[in-house]
Formats: sequence, C-alpha cells, structure tokens
Amino acid sequence: MPDFVLDWSRSARTGTSEAVLCEPKSVAQIEAIVVEARALGRRLLLTRLRPRQHGALSSDTRAALDYDAPTRTAIVGGLPPPRAAGRVAIVCAGTSDLPVAREAERTLAFAGEVATMVADVGVAGLWRLMDRIDEIRAHRVAIAVAGMEGALFSVLAGLVPCAVVAVPTSVGYGVARGGRAALHAALASCSSGLVATNIDNGFGAAHAALRILGEPAPIVDAAPVSR
Amino acid sequence: MPDFVLDWSRSARTGTSEAVLCEPKSVAQIEAIVVEARALGRRLLLTRLRPRQHGALSSDTRAALDYDAPTRTAIVGGLPPPRAAGRVAIVCAGTSDLPVAREAERTLAFAGEVATMVADVGVAGLWRLMDRIDEIRAHRVAIAVAGMEGALFSVLAGLVPCAVVAVPTSVGYGVARGGRAALHAALASCSSGLVATNIDNGFGAAHAALRILGEPAPIVDAAPVSR
Amino acid sequence: MPDFVLDWSRSARTGTSEAVLCEPKSVAQIEAIVVEARALGRRLLLTRLRPRQHGALSSDTRAALDYDAPTRTAIVGGLPPPRAAGRVAIVCAGTSDLPVAREAERTLAFAGEVATMVADVGVAGLWRLMDRIDEIRAHRVAIAVAGMEGALFSVLAGLVPCAVVAVPTSVGYGVARGGRAALHAALASCSSGLVATNIDNGFGAAHAALRILGEPAPIVDAAPVSR
Amino acid sequence: MPDFVLDWSRSARTGTSEAVLCEPKSVAQIEAIVVEARALGRRLLLTRLRPRQHGALSSDTRAALDYDAPTRTAIVGGLPPPRAAGRVAIVCAGTSDLPVAREAERTLAFAGEVATMVADVGVAGLWRLMDRIDEIRAHRVAIAVAGMEGALFSVLAGLVPCAVVAVPTSVGYGVARGGRAALHAALASCSSGLVATNIDNGFGAAHAALRILGEPAPIVDAAPVSR
Amino acid sequence: MPDFVLDWSRSARTGTSEAVLCEPKSVAQIEAIVVEARALGRRLLLTRLRPRQHGALSSDTRAALDYDAPTRTAIVGGLPPPRAAGRVAIVCAGTSDLPVAREAERTLAFAGEVATMVADVGVAGLWRLMDRIDEIRAHRVAIAVAGMEGALFSVLAGLVPCAVVAVPTSVGYGVARGGRAALHAALASCSSGLVATNIDNGFGAAHAALRILGEPAPIVDAAPVSR
Amino acid sequence: MPDFVLDWSRSARTGTSEAVLCEPKSVAQIEAIVVEARALGRRLLLTRLRPRQHGALSSDTRAALDYDAPTRTAIVGGLPPPRAAGRVAIVCAGTSDLPVAREAERTLAFAGEVATMVADVGVAGLWRLMDRIDEIRAHRVAIAVAGMEGALFSVLAGLVPCAVVAVPTSVGYGVARGGRAALHAALASCSSGLVATNIDNGFGAAHAALRILGEPAPIVDAAPVSR
Amino acid sequence: MPDFVLDWSRSARTGTSEAVLCEPKSVAQIEAIVVEARALGRRLLLTRLRPRQHGALSSDTRAALDYDAPTRTAIVGGLPPPRAAGRVAIVCAGTSDLPVAREAERTLAFAGEVATMVADVGVAGLWRLMDRIDEIRAHRVAIAVAGMEGALFSVLAGLVPCAVVAVPTSVGYGVARGGRAALHAALASCSSGLVATNIDNGFGAAHAALRILGEPAPIVDAAPVSR
Amino acid sequence: MPDFVLDWSRSARTGTSEAVLCEPKSVAQIEAIVVEARALGRRLLLTRLRPRQHGALSSDTRAALDYDAPTRTAIVGGLPPPRAAGRVAIVCAGTSDLPVAREAERTLAFAGEVATMVADVGVAGLWRLMDRIDEIRAHRVAIAVAGMEGALFSVLAGLVPCAVVAVPTSVGYGVARGGRAALHAALASCSSGLVATNIDNGFGAAHAALRILGEPAPIVDAAPVSR
Repeated sequence: MPDFVLDWSRSARTGTSEAVLCEPKSVAQIEAIVVEARALGRRLLLTRLRPRQHGALSSDTRAALDYDAPTRTAIVGGLPPPRAAGRVAIVCAGTSDLPVAREAERTLAFAGEVATMVADVGVAGLWRLMDRIDEIRAHRVAIAVAGMEGALFSVLAGLVPCAVVAVPTSVGYGVARGGRAALHAALASCSSGLVATNIDNGFGAAHAALRILGEPAPIVDAAPVSR
Repeated sequence: MPDFVLDWSRSARTGTSEAVLCEPKSVAQIEAIVVEARALGRRLLLTRLRPRQHGALSSDTRAALDYDAPTRTAIVGGLPPPRAAGRVAIVCAGTSDLPVAREAERTLAFAGEVATMVADVGVAGLWRLMDRIDEIRAHRVAIAVAGMEGALFSVLAGLVPCAVVAVPTSVGYGVARGGRAALHAALASCSSGLVATNIDNGFGAAHAALRILGEPAPIVDAAPVSR
Repeated sequence: MPDFVLDWSRSARTGTSEAVLCEPKSVAQIEAIVVEARALGRRLLLTRLRPRQHGALSSDTRAALDYDAPTRTAIVGGLPPPRAAGRVAIVCAGTSDLPVAREAERTLAFAGEVATMVADVGVAGLWRLMDRIDEIRAHRVAIAVAGMEGALFSVLAGLVPCAVVAVPTSVGYGVARGGRAALHAALASCSSGLVATNIDNGFGAAHAALRILGEPAPIVDAAPVSR
Repeated sequence: MPDFVLDWSRSARTGTSEAVLCEPKSVAQIEAIVVEARALGRRLLLTRLRPRQHGALSSDTRAALDYDAPTRTAIVGGLPPPRAAGRVAIVCAGTSDLPVAREAERTLAFAGEVATMVADVGVAGLWRLMDRIDEIRAHRVAIAVAGMEGALFSVLAGLVPCAVVAVPTSVGYGVARGGRAALHAALASCSSGLVATNIDNGFGAAHAALRILGEPAPIVDAAPVSR
Repeated sequence: MPDFVLDWSRSARTGTSEAVLCEPKSVAQIEAIVVEARALGRRLLLTRLRPRQHGALSSDTRAALDYDAPTRTAIVGGLPPPRAAGRVAIVCAGTSDLPVAREAERTLAFAGEVATMVADVGVAGLWRLMDRIDEIRAHRVAIAVAGMEGALFSVLAGLVPCAVVAVPTSVGYGVARGGRAALHAALASCSSGLVATNIDNGFGAAHAALRILGEPAPIVDAAPVSR
Repeated sequence: MPDFVLDWSRSARTGTSEAVLCEPKSVAQIEAIVVEARALGRRLLLTRLRPRQHGALSSDTRAALDYDAPTRTAIVGGLPPPRAAGRVAIVCAGTSDLPVAREAERTLAFAGEVATMVADVGVAGLWRLMDRIDEIRAHRVAIAVAGMEGALFSVLAGLVPCAVVAVPTSVGYGVARGGRAALHAALASCSSGLVATNIDNGFGAAHAALRILGEPAPIVDAAPVSR
Repeated sequence: MPDFVLDWSRSARTGTSEAVLCEPKSVAQIEAIVVEARALGRRLLLTRLRPRQHGALSSDTRAALDYDAPTRTAIVGGLPPPRAAGRVAIVCAGTSDLPVAREAERTLAFAGEVATMVADVGVAGLWRLMDRIDEIRAHRVAIAVAGMEGALFSVLAGLVPCAVVAVPTSVGYGVARGGRAALHAALASCSSGLVATNIDNGFGAAHAALRILGEPAPIVDAAPVSR
Repeated sequence: MPDFVLDWSRSARTGTSEAVLCEPKSVAQIEAIVVEARALGRRLLLTRLRPRQHGALSSDTRAALDYDAPTRTAIVGGLPPPRAAGRVAIVCAGTSDLPVAREAERTLAFAGEVATMVADVGVAGLWRLMDRIDEIRAHRVAIAVAGMEGALFSVLAGLVPCAVVAVPTSVGYGVARGGRAALHAALASCSSGLVATNIDNGFGAAHAALRILGEPAPIVDAAPVSR
C-alpha cells in the first residue's frame, strides 16, 4: 500500500484543488507525491516546503518544480493563464508579514487569479492605509495579513464592504509569539463580518477567497464527484 | 456628552449595519440607545440581550422590540421584506447549537436574506449530513455551527464548494468548555478554504455572509460615506 | 492584632495615596477600615465595592461614603477642590467599557485632577475617533480603555504624542472573555511607547497618570517617609 | 547503585512488557540498559531513540539493535513469531502522521500482533475512508492516528463498533502546533466511547490494544507477580 | 423541520446506543425528544439532566423517566435485564468522584452490564487500593475515576492487566480546578497502555467499555446499517 | 459498600492526620463521615465546608462541630491542648488573604501547634514587613500567604533563614484571577529555597509545617503502620 | 511596489521616531531599508538585529551601522548630542536582564536622553536596592527590568514617586520560561500606578519614557502631520 | 559600575549561600563573577552552566572550576568536608530525571550535606518504591524528583512522615512537555503536606532542605546581617 492517496477529485467537489503540506513529511514522501503527479500529468501545489527539504529532493524532481523560497511554495506543472484580476486584494500590515501574504498570492495565481498586493500599511502609521483604502474597496475580497496585535483587521473591516479574511501571522515576540494575540484580535474584532484562518495560513485564505468568488478551479481535474 | 455614538453610516461603508451588543451594557444604556434609534426612525438589531435585561427595560421600549429569547436578539423597526433566499445555508451540528444558528438566521433576516436551516447533522451519525449534502451544495455560503470537537467543519468543507464560515459554539464540557476545542478544529482543519468567527458568534457569521454575497443592506441608512 | 495595617505614609513615598480593594474583603473588614479612616480624619478611596457589600455596611458607615454603584467606588471624606484639568484624557472604545473608564475618572478626581472623557470612539467606526483626535492630542496623558480586540490602543498611540496608558477591559465573549485578547493587543502593539495596566484596572491607570504628571497628592497624609 | 531498575515483572502484572523511553536519556544510560537486557537474555523495546543517540551507541550495541529510524524504535532480541493478525486496524489520517502510526504497528509486532495499516484516509476527502470502512469494521480495535483538527476520530467512531483508541499527533501549525487541537477533538468527540492517548503516543496506543485484546505477552518474562 | 434527528441506527453501527446530552439543551427540546422516544417505543438514556431541567419537564414526561439526581441521568423505557456481570470494575479515587463513577455504572446498566464499584481507594492511603487489587485484576476492563492529581491512574495501570480507561474529574481547586491536572496525569502516565476520556465523562467511559467488551447492545434498535 | 473509607492510619504513617475536603461532597456524604468519626470517638478536621453545606447538616451533627465560617473549617472532637508555640509564623500579605492564613492557623491548632499571625504586611508598604522581620526570623517555619502578584514570597525568603512555605491565594482580578500569577511568583522566585503549595491551600501548608517540625500528631490514631 | 513604506512622519505625530524591528525580516529587506534611510539622510534605529543577520548585510551597509551585539541594536546616522540626563533611571533586577535594560538605554540615547543604569538590585538581596533607592527617587521615570518572578516591580513602585514602567524579561525557566510570570507580576502588582510593556521590550519602555517626558525627538524628521 | 553585585551576606541572612544561575548570562559575565569570587577567596556554586558556556570560559577560570556536565553545576573553591548524612533522601522516579536529582545532591554537598540517592522508583513498577520505603522513612527530608505525570509525589507522601519537597521535571512529551503536568500533580496532590519547587529546580529543593534542617551554611561567609 502506498503511504498516500491523493484526492484528485477535490476540485470537482469543493472548487479548490488538492495541495500538499510538506513541512511534516519526509523527503521520500514528497518525492513520491511529485512523481505521481507528474506521471498523471497533474498540476499540483506544494506548501511549506522548507529549503532544506527542497534541496534534498532528486535533481529530476527539483527541475520539475517552480520553487519560491520566501513563501516555501512549489508548483508542479506551471501556472495557468490568468483568468481574472482585481477581485482579491491582499492587505499586509508589515514587511515581516510578506511571506504569508505572498503564499496567498501564489496560491491564487495557481488558480489563475491575479491578486492586488497592498504592502506595509499597518496602523502605527494610519495614513499608509488611508492612502490606499479606495483602491482596496474596489475588490470583492480583502485578505488581511497581520501579526503582533493585529489591529489592522478591525480598522480595515470597518472601512470596506469587501469580504474580509484575516490571516494572523506569528510575527512578534513576548505575548505575540506564535500568533495567538493577532488571531484573537481577528476573532474578537469590534468590526463585524470579519472571518479568520489559522495563523500563518496564507494558503487557506486564498482558498477561502476562491470559494467566495465561486469560480471552480480550471477543469484540469476531472475525477468523478460520485466518489 | 452621551455615553454612545451610534455609527449610522456603517452600512454605507461596509454593507453591514450598526448593531448593539447588549450583554455588557447597563439597562439604562440599552434604553437610551433604543430611544435614539426610534427617534431617528432607524431600524436596529440588538444582540445578546439577556431576558433579565429585556425585562428591566421600560414597557414602552419593550413594546417597540421584537424580542426572541432563545437567540437573545431584538429588532427595532421590524423585518424588511425578504430580498433573496436559497443563497445561505445554516448547517447546525446539534440541537444544543441551535440558539447560535438561529442568531445567524435572524441577523440575515434583518437584512432581508432568507437562510435555509439544516439542523442536527453532526458527524456522530454521518448519514444525517449525507442525506442533505446535495441540498447544501446549492447555496453560495454555508454557515456551519458546531460545538464540542467541531468535526462537522472539516467534513462539510470537504464535500461542498460553498464559502464555508465556521461558528464554533461553547457547547461541551471538560476540554470543550468555552468552545476553544471547536474553534481550533475550525482553524486547523485539513479541509482548505474554511474560515472561522469567534465562539458563539452567529451574528458575525451572518454579517460575513452578507459581505460575501456582496449585497449592500437596504438603503435605509443614508449617512454620508465621507465621515 | 488588627487584620489590617493601613499605609498612611504611601502618598508621601509614592505620590499616590492608600486605597482599599474591597471585592475580596469581608463586610466586617471594610467596616473596620472605614471606621479607622474616619477616626483619624483621613480621606480614603474604596474600589470594587460591590453593591451587595455596600448594602451590608452599617447605616452610619454608609452615610459617610460617597458611593457610585456603576464604578463600584466609594469615597470617605469627600472630593478635594480640583487642582488641574485638561491634562488627562480618558479615551473609551465602547459604551460597555464606561464603568472602567469612570473608575479612572473618579480616582483622578479623588486627587483633584479633572479628566476629559472621550466616549464610544472604537475603531469599527473610525470617524468617531478622528473627530476628536485633535482634542485628545492636547493632553499630557491619554488613558485608553477598550475590551474585545483592543485595536483602539494601537490606532490612538500612532496618532498622538501623549503618554498612552492602555486599560484592557473584560468586555467581550469567546476568545475575548476575561480581557486577555485586549491586554495582549496593548502589549504587542505595533505603535511604540504604549504601556498597559491589568485588565479592568481603571484605578491603576489613574495612579499611573498621577505618577506621570509628577504631582504629589495633596499633603493630607503627613506620615513620615522614614518608615 | 545503578541509575536504573528495569521492571522485568511488568508483563506478568500488566500484560504489557517493559519498554525504554530513550529521548530524555543519556547515551551512556541507554547503552547500560541494552547491555543489561542482553546479559539477561531479555527482549526489549526502545522508543523515541533519536538517530543522533543511536549513532552514538557503541558499535557492539548498535549491532544488537533492530533500529527503525522513521519510528525511532529499536528492538533488542528480535521480533517473536506472529501470534495473531486482523484484530487491530491502524487508521491514519495523513501521510505526515505515519511515523506515529508505524510506532504503534511495531510495538504490536514486538508482542506478536500483526496490525492492518489503513493510511491517508483523512476526512478532507471522505471517500478515502468510506472505501475502506467495511474492512476496518472487521477488527476488534481501531487505533486512529490524526493531527491537525483530528476530525477523523469522530467520523470513524461514528461508523464502527470497534474499540477506538485515538492517537492525536503534533502534526500541524498555528493553533494545531504541539497537538492539543487534535487531542481535544478526540476527548470532546460527539461520537461516544472513544478514548485517547497522549499526543504522538503510538506506543501507548499499541499497549492499550494489547490490554483490550486481553492476551498476555508471550511468557518470555517470568518474574514473580508477588513483587 | 424538527430541531433534532435522533440517530436510532447508532447501536447497529457502533454497538453503543443513542444518548442525549441534556445540559446545553432547552427544556422544550428535551421534552420533545422524550416524547419522540416514547412514541416510537424506544429506550433512551439522558445524561447531564440538571435537577432544575428535570423539574421543569411536564409531569407526564417526568413520570416516564427513571431519574437519578446525583448522576443527573434519566432513563426512558427502563433498564433491561442484566446480561453480564464481573467484567467491568469501576475504581473510584474519592468520595467526591462518585457521581461520575455512578454515571458510568448506570450507563453500563442501561446496556445490561453490571459493574463492580470499588470506591474511595485514592493513593493517599495506598492500603485501600492494595486491599482490593486482586478483586480488580479479575475484570476485563477497569474504569478509573479520579480528580485532583489523578495519581490513581498510574498506580492502578501498573498493577493490573485490564484495559484501563481513565476518567479524570473536575474535583479539586487551584491548579486542579476544571480537571486538566487529572486529565494530563492520565495522558502522561508512566504506566503504559492507559487511555483517557474527557473530564467528568463517566458516560463515555462506559461506552468505551462496551466497545472493548465487543458486545452489541440488545437488538432493540433495528435501524438499517445501510444509512 | 459505603461511599468512603477513612484513612485512620494516616497519622501513624505520615505524621499528619486524615482530613475531609467537603466542598465537592454531598451533604449526605459529609453527614455520614461525621457520624462515623463520632461513633469511633475520633477527632477529625473538615475543610472547605461551605456555610450552605454546614447549614444543611442535621442539627445533631451541627452541634458536634466547632465550625468557623470565614475559614470554612469544622472540627469534630475539639482542639487538643497546645503542645508548642513560637515555631510557625504565618505571614499574610493582605487583609483579603486572611481566610487562607487562618485555615492554616486552625489546621495547626488541630494538631496542638500555636502559630504566630503576622497580618497585612504586603510589600506595597515595605515598612510593615520590616517592622516585624526580626520577630518572624525567630520561627522555624514561615508560612507566607499572598495573592495578586505574590511579591511577598521573594522578599521574605531573602530576609529569613526559616523554611518558607508559600501559599498563593486566588485574591486578585485580571491576570491574577484564580491565583496562577501568585503561584508562579512563588515557584519562579529569585530567592532560593522557597517552596509552594496549591492555590488557597492553607491546610496543606500547615501539614507541610508539621512534617517539617517532625512532630507526629498526638497518638490518638493507633491504626497499624503495617497496612 | 516596494515591500516597505517607512513612516518618516511618526516623530512629528507621536514624539517617537520610526524604528525597524529586524528579527522577522529577511536580510534583503533590512538592507533595502537601511539604503533608503541613508539615501534620505535620515537617522534610524534598528532593533532585534541578530548577529547572523548583521553579518549577512553588505559590507557597505555594515560600515554605516553602529551595531551593538548584546542589545542587538544598530544605529544609522549616529547618536545625537545628549539633550538631558538624570531624568530616567533604568533599574535592573539581575545580570541576566542587562541586554534588555541596555536596549532601553540605547533607545533613549538615540533620542539624546542619557539614562542612569542601576544594575543587579533584585530583591533576593534587598539591601542592594535599598542602597540606591534615594538615587532612583530623584528621577522622573524609572524603567524597571526583571525576569523570573518580577518581585522588583512591586517593591520599587512602593518606594518611589516616579512613573514606573515595568519591562518583564524572558529570563527564567519552568513556569517563568518566556516571561509570563514576570509580566503578570507587573500587571497584578499590589503597588498601584505601575504600568507594563511587552516581555523583553526595552525599546518600548524607552519610547514610553520619552512620551512621559513629553519632549519631542529632535526635529530631524520634518514630515507633515497632515498625512 | 559592574554588571553584578554578589550577595555575600546571603548565607548569614537566610542560611543558604549565594549561587549563580548561568544559563541566561553571557560568558563574559560568568567569567567576571568567578574572578571576583576567587579574588575574595569565596566558595561559590554555579548552576545551569551549559557545556558550551563552560567551554568558552578562559582556561584559567575553567581550571578553577569543579564542573559536572550532566548536572551543569560548577563549584569554585571545592567541596567542604561533609557535616552530616542520612538526613535528606533524594527519591527519583526515572533514569531521565537523574540530572535534576543530582543537581540537588551536589547543591547539598556544597553545603556539606550528604544525601541518600534512591533512583528509578517510579510507580509504574510500584515494588521498586516499596522495596526502599523503610529506608526513605528514616530521613527528615525527602526530595522527590519526577516528570511525566508525577504520580510518585502522592504515593510517596502518603507513605512517609518526612518533609516532602517535590521537584517536577520537564521529562515527557505531549501534554507533559515542559513539566506542567508533573508540577500540577505535586500541587494538587491528594496526599497532604507536600510542597513543590519550580520545574527542574533541583538546586532550589536542596536549599529548601537546608532551610528545613535549620543548619546555617558553614560560616565561611561572614558579611554583616545589618545590610
């Protein structure tokens, strides 16, 4: 029996395609998964692939991957042509939060969705957000990425009508270490209608945006729903 | 100076209208807020209004409220005519979670949105969910309400393409007391693209659904955006 | 031996006078403390005196107290004449946070300091804070009082040069219950130079303001420093 | 006095044999324990023996060990002949959980029990579990291994009559880091009759299964019960 | 649509029958559930039915219930004839833990299983446990019930070959309040093969014992497995 | 079988006599325990007996109890003649901590040990402790009782050579609620050789003092050690 | 778009200048920030710049930095001439807390404020603090730095009239690991008017001191407030 | 000003001598402290001195240290002649807990007290403790060292009249990681009169034992008490 059973029918069921969380897997497992995807001619997104894991893959597999070290994402089978733009804004509080924001951006790109990145608009200098708030309002979904105390979530959600998906990050120290402070800020927000993902989960926020946009992923994956 | 400054321009800014969280307020504060709303001819939603608080309001104010004790919601100014139905499903794990589910339902109704209630479909008896899964799939948003271990969130999100908003509840005891176990289940789900609100926040999930549907609330509230 | 030893030399040492936290004390203990203060002709501030405790005191003692139920504070010996105003602003996020904000206001008044109250300026409707920001900037100290996610702390501290003392409150539910979410927001703020007190500690924030203003309390208490 | 006192009478008392948790021990301590077991001609299971610890043992000791790096288990004295099969199923949610699942499998094999491995059947793609549910039902014990949100525990226990032993794993990030989310999911399950071990404790789950099967370990260890 | 969907096919699927957790339900919901069970002629176990809830039920419904206030359990349809005894021992650390122990006893009795109660054998006076250890050893399952520090779990599991199901209780104060200390003691035990249920979950431990004994509940419930 | 098995041999084994924690017990259980003690002519200490429980006991049993409501302790069989004094000092930070301090005092008195009470010497007014430090130094054991931030523990232990037993109390609010802040202060103290009991455990601290003094309780209890 | 938007108008708004938290940033990001500051001729403070990050910067950038490894601070543009001294005392409990204390000292120096360092005055040896208490009293602000149980905060605040800013540190192990014990000691202090920063946040305490002193930073940064 | 102020008068005040916690200190700080001790001709105990720190000291300083790597303790000035033996037993649950147990042993030896080591007597094999219980009973103090679930503390304290000082260790994984489970077991013990130190604090337990024995350290340190 193999160690894994890839869920190729997922996109047909949920509109979001199978992806592989690499951090807790062995290099041998990751290698085998990529081999299977390539053998089947499938596109596949790998997340949280650490540079050390990437470096330990076979050179053949490495050559088949479009790897981006800062976001720790890798893509098998390349990006599809863009299908839409201007629907998702990624609003990022600080420079330190960018790897998570860019994981969301790349996950969206894997589905053909081109996001607008609005970086370094944390509320310590509120004018930075105010300068770009009209631009953000024009999107259907705003993915807000912030660590530390996560005050950006409430301020943003109080100013725009978009669906707001908060991604707390583990950026911070002391009581902010690990990201619980930012997560709780998102969940306890005085601005209503805000929702949250797990800490550092840019990937999940992108999939949430795809569900909200209601566009099924490109019909590359034709597995039967009846499973 | 008054104790409160109602944000009547909110719906124009965010598409979700001002609402009043009553639980931590004094009866005198609640009374004054309702009086102002009535004086201005505004519709207003009150949440977490405990029966004891409701009973202590003036009879005149009580008469102006459409109060629902199980959900602890009260409405000033009545419900609007329904504007749409069949777009939001509320999927509720257990009978005990119904007050939270119904808070979401009533918040949606306050905005004219008629939700579909799918009750008591927790995964201990999986056939109950399976019997209704095709019905749920036809909605744009699924609000999933569950306490205890919150396994419903992952199972549901793995089966439908809807935007899935998880509302963990405080139903449970031992390690589930207070709702953290269910909240963490929603956030750590192996099914991607799921988002969560605070514990017991049916109101917030409804507002998230309204943001997702992208329909501004009825233009009852005409305060200028420029504030 | 008596149960208590009042620290009448405190104001000479620290500039802030002895006060009595009543919540965990028995009625008999509170009674005895007030009797001693009156016998010595001392002014004294009682905090967290629950209505039930107040009601159980002797009628003679009750008559000697200026009791304010919403803030649960009582004053023995009356308020002094105001010595200054316009130096401390109390900036309060929501109507529900007012009891804590008013505890700070009354503690300042006990020392002769008249504070400016700026109420219901939470960031869900940012214009409410912006309308009053210039007024706040003119004070030397801003006591910011907020529960839930505490986003007000960062926004305020990013806009004013005052010493900013954050008082997180226990207002909120789910992950905000008890006030840790707001506390962590204050401590982890991206706006620098913000400091925090314990949850719901309006009294402590007022004493911090008095230390910052550097004005010793009126020399009612003449106990020797040399103790 | 030696540093350790091995409990050779354990299998006679409890039906599960002595085993050595190596992670917190020094290499010298592990070395001495193996030497004693070999001198007495005893079979012994070592758990959580890190590769670095294994590599630092004497070559003589290393030669006496059957070491499996992914599960970090080592066996002194070899495996016994299988005594039974088809009684214990190990049901594993994700590829990342396999090291823990395989620790259980090897612990069972040390006692002669051959388990059935059912891998990568997490509920994000529910059909994977449904495809094998009849096979699982035929076992007396199901050891369920899952990290992240641990939804597998409830779904499985709602579908089979087996004794279900949940082993939460530390696989996951954010609120799932360390395994508390999965543990709480097991303990708070809406499916009744489920029990849990400590996080990542595949060894303990295997011993629980042996207790449930009620078969004493092979009578290699004849120490008197009377101790 | 009704608020609830009872899972009458559960015993056929899992060997443990449907039961109703009453604490978080409204009186009206409990009333309706009992009415349905009676209308269908089904036996049903209610757990965590508080005396106040019981007292608020209709007199007709109350008359149909065999209610036991200390354990907060109620039975619709009476107990079945005993089918077996001497297979499950309930080992209870302190007098204060008895309500939880007796909830397990009554849940077993509902399934016809007669348990042996071994009460007040906490390890502070170890001789109390030692006096009865041989008696306990003769059972196939030992349900151990303990609060405070839960040391009983490890001591017992080190002395008997039974399957040991630990039920931590919320008995205790300070760091033991709520039962986490006892729960962690069960999970982190140095005695291997011990498993745990949620805090105060005597009901769940009984169901675990029934799964372990592998005896389906009496075939009162004939719903098709095929659901 | 009775619900309880009193450990009358405890004092012979451990030098501290059996005591009964009443808070989590039913009135019927407490009643039966007192009846047994009286029937055997044993002295017995009851702790955490709430006034409501005390009031619900039979009048005959109440008459046999020396009950002290503030400390919630009751004594069956009266106090013994004092055997020693001046060996244990109880050093209490605040008036609010006195019930816990007095529980220790009364537990010591039950064993004939007369303690010295040093009350209201918290470090906010350090001179209060300094005034009495020489008196404290003359004792063999100092039981320090403090809530809130527990700074007294470190200051005291840095000044005296006594064995210092810290009893953190649950006095405080916000981050101090429940007593963890004071407990951690005791455990993490920069003053070495300090030890701690559970929160609010004045009873336990008294028993620790008795163990330290090494005086077996009066040989009222003659049960054989050999059990 | 660049990754960062420096807030050069901050000192005009808040009296404390922009600073860069380096720990969570990539070397490329830090490099670019320093390049911009130098290009604009701005002075800039970098905090939490790890030696490994510093070593990976370009040699040109490294040459432009005044880097202090123990405090992990770096300064672009040099220190200004001192503007004042004797107003801020830094009171440090232990030798291990010095890096945090010195971060505060250097942050003050960056603004021209010369602080008085009072080192190793933890309360285990109270005489060390007493020897210097009169010197400390002469300052307007006391920044107290302590880890472990943080008892210094309360003792100091009870003895001086200064504004006291507590900086808990992560020095300690067991329950003190990470600094929560010291943080809670500061927040729950029985000495009133004490305020706290995040754990290990010497930088923040220095900015709080600057706000309290009410001296705007030198007018190097002339960005308009109107942003 | 130096970074440190050694408290040479401590043993005169508290009966336990100054010691230096090295883990959080820089090598330069440790070096300077040892130099001062040697210059003054003082004996000094260093704790938690990591091998890497020890290796980085000057060769001259290293030569002056009696360093024991497993316990991470180092002694300046050698051990004194033993003054007493047979008064303190160190009772250690598992082989993995020995480094902490030996830290206690060496701290006692530094004060001339020879302890009895009773190793590997965890309760999983209760006979190991029973074999040595009479030996342990003969001591005045028992230091109990245990990780994981810490059941040893309660069992031991229920069997002996000694003062029992529990030292929880960080040995364990999952819910036991970090030592909180064992700490809470000690604090919540059903055996009364048990006290606890911080996690892994063998040093502190030894100092507690010295306080209990009431023997001042040898009068090497003659600093005046009057400080």
